[in-house]
Amino acid sequence: MSDFTKMSKEELEALRANLLNEYEDVKSKGISLNMARGKPGPDQLELSMPMMKVLTEDDLLAADGTDCRNYGVLDGLKEAKELVAGMINTSPENLIIYGNSSLNIMYDTVSRSYTHGVLGNTPWCKLDKVKFLCPVPGYDRHFAITEHFGIEMINIPLLSDGPDMDLVEKYVSEDESVKGIWCVPKYANPTGIVYSDQVVKRFAALQPAAKDFRIYWDNAYTVHHLDYEHPAQILDILSECEKAGNPDLVYEFCSTSKVTFPGSGVAALATSKANIADVKKSMTIQTIGHDKINQLRHVKFFKDINGINQHMEAQAKVLCPKFQAVLDVLEEKLAPCNIASWNQPKGGYFISLETIDGCAKKAISMCKDAGLVLTGAGATYPYHKDPKDSNIRIAPSFPLPEELREAAKILVLCVKIAAIDVLLNK
Amino acid sequence: MSDFTKMSKEELEALRANLLNEYEDVKSKGISLNMARGKPGPDQLELSMPMMKVLTEDDLLAADGTDCRNYGVLDGLKEAKELVAGMINTSPENLIIYGNSSLNIMYDTVSRSYTHGVLGNTPWCKLDKVKFLCPVPGYDRHFAITEHFGIEMINIPLLSDGPDMDLVEKYVSEDESVKGIWCVPKYANPTGIVYSDQVVKRFAALQPAAKDFRIYWDNAYTVHHLDYEHPAQILDILSECEKAGNPDLVYEFCSTSKVTFPGSGVAALATSKANIADVKKSMTIQTIGHDKINQLRHVKFFKDINGINQHMEAQAKVLCPKFQAVLDVLEEKLAPCNIASWNQPKGGYFISLETIDGCAKKAISMCKDAGLVLTGAGATYPYHKDPKDSNIRIAPSFPLPEELREAAKILVLCVKIAAIDVLLNK
Repeated sequence: MSDFTKMSKEELEALRANLLNEYEDVKSKGISLNMARGKPGPDQLELSMPMMKVLTEDDLLAADGTDCRNYGVLDGLKEAKELVAGMINTSPENLIIYGNSSLNIMYDTVSRSYTHGVLGNTPWCKLDKVKFLCPVPGYDRHFAITEHFGIEMINIPLLSDGPDMDLVEKYVSEDESVKGIWCVPKYANPTGIVYSDQVVKRFAALQPAAKDFRIYWDNAYTVHHLDYEHPAQILDILSECEKAGNPDLVYEFCSTSKVTFPGSGVAALATSKANIADVKKSMTIQTIGHDKINQLRHVKFFKDINGINQHMEAQAKVLCPKFQAVLDVLEEKLAPCNIASWNQPKGGYFISLETIDGCAKKAISMCKDAGLVLTGAGATYPYHKDPKDSNIRIAPSFPLPEELREAAKILVLCVKIAAIDVLLNK
Repeated sequence: MSDFTKMSKEELEALRANLLNEYEDVKSKGISLNMARGKPGPDQLELSMPMMKVLTEDDLLAADGTDCRNYGVLDGLKEAKELVAGMINTSPENLIIYGNSSLNIMYDTVSRSYTHGVLGNTPWCKLDKVKFLCPVPGYDRHFAITEHFGIEMINIPLLSDGPDMDLVEKYVSEDESVKGIWCVPKYANPTGIVYSDQVVKRFAALQPAAKDFRIYWDNAYTVHHLDYEHPAQILDILSECEKAGNPDLVYEFCSTSKVTFPGSGVAALATSKANIADVKKSMTIQTIGHDKINQLRHVKFFKDINGINQHMEAQAKVLCPKFQAVLDVLEEKLAPCNIASWNQPKGGYFISLETIDGCAKKAISMCKDAGLVLTGAGATYPYHKDPKDSNIRIAPSFPLPEELREAAKILVLCVKIAAIDVLLNK
């Protein structure tokens, strides 16, 4: 079997009939597999189990003597800031440590901008129009936040080294209603791309029409290398912004959700001194403080960034065979057909599969009918509208390698059938 | 020394001179005491220490098999709902379990009403005027939230069995811009009062002009009895509202912050089915879920409401001598002077001292200069404006009994001086 695009109509029809038989066989097996969400597998979670006993009864004081069991410390323990600073190459004083969810920080950041404005600017709820730039394909939960607040989202193509910066610069400098851009700068969700130094510098040098424009820099996969011997490095956006004379331009988010236990991790915001003061005006009304015992638990477990890096290397050893299982099947079964392309991620949680136009929805739906759940079609685009209906996000972290091979085969089968339908209808 | 109000000007002046000498002596000692915040003492926290080892490595599954270490379960573990339901006498299905802070839930609730409206009603940010009723004296952090959102606050006198319901009914039924009322129904902050059954029933039977009026029922001290042999009972507001045909009228908040470790507890919202569905529309955008490991930790530690009640009885045994230390000094040194009154709390965290008009600010300021920090004057009123300048909130939970006796003596001294100044200037 080879290049579909060079096959005759008759060849495609014959192939389609065979593939449909195969599909009916698969369907009859009643399997149940899930490659929908970037969820760590139990084998990864096991690596964090020692954290459950790292705190002892007589050891609940922070380095400065703070009793972590009691109220207080709005913005996080000093040693927790030092730990997280190591993850994203920033200084502890740029950080606020929050609760368990960086998504929640992002939501709060947009919500606060909507209700109270950014650094003294008009609250967005008082404006007729607020827009965000959305590099695509991207993270569905980012888009869900901006959609929830009625913010108009503008697609920006994601190139191999970051968003199309010509377009970003044009929108940001010309349109005062553009207030933000969602970025996943390292091992992007879902494409796995890493922003080049040049892209980061162009971000830092933006000259926004809106004073309250901010870059929403979701550094979710900062330590999540798969190729841990050659970890990707990105420039530190905060210091680049400072150098460029734009110190307040960025909100950077990160967490340990996929480092230790999702739901029981520690999340943080890194930003400028002025932005931190602005955020704290609301934060001090919102809470007395976040879970310091859990902050201390993370500090005692990892000690410092070296501890995190070792831990993430162990995670990579669990994850690599899973990614490879899927990539092997794609390479063997799908590559020859010339109907799709995909990335070879060096980190992060996803493989992004790009089919010929008009296949994604049908392939995902067929997978679902056969018992394989994938991220919903269109999820990687604002408003769930993939304009070319071509992107399929694959999350290989949770299932076992043998399950992933089976799942990838089903996916390939469905993509083939969907592609033949497209080719036949041309 | 006896009734100040019956002394002559000369007697008061002579007494004032003596008290001022005494004050200067106290000041020269350079003490440092704090009765400002309702913060558990280390002796209370010790009671929760076994919680640190209640979870074992092979025991991180919820009853339904959920791996508590991983993502998922937006609204809380079933067994955590059961535990919290026992605290506030409601059904588990009325609950959403959140993170560590009920204050944060309250902020989010107001913020969500502001940005997205309540159950389909106009978001408050689109309205010209939003008002809240504030029973006074009350909790400063409640008032801070409403002030932060530009909500106009209206003082409602707190009577011995709850807010002045005639006034509440009048405002709520006549003014469509009245969207909420802050309530601490049991062992109120700071007065310690407990809402009577009749008051709860009148709340449940309110006929609001605004469809999006809600009662913000902060049941913060639901299990915080001091007189644990005679624990106060209040009616369950949720079922009363349902009986009265107003099922959606109330948001009830509670937490384990002052039960286990403040900052590392579990907080919850209890409300109707329709309100829960409404809240979840935003919540599902805001987070993937809260800390289930910590939920499980609380469940394993307490097992059920009986475990909580036993634990709170042990806490009461720590707290009672502290409250008594302050009350004894007030009774002995202040009662005869006829310049102040105070409550004998049966639960909660505070003693509310009511001086003759015009004394609170001066007395608190003098205490501060002598090294005793109290809750800021006016804090128990919206906009920090105590109209009679007469309320002083005393938080006796953190210091030791001997420190509290010393602190109470200083407070009494300062109140006496401030009162004499008022009497002399009449």
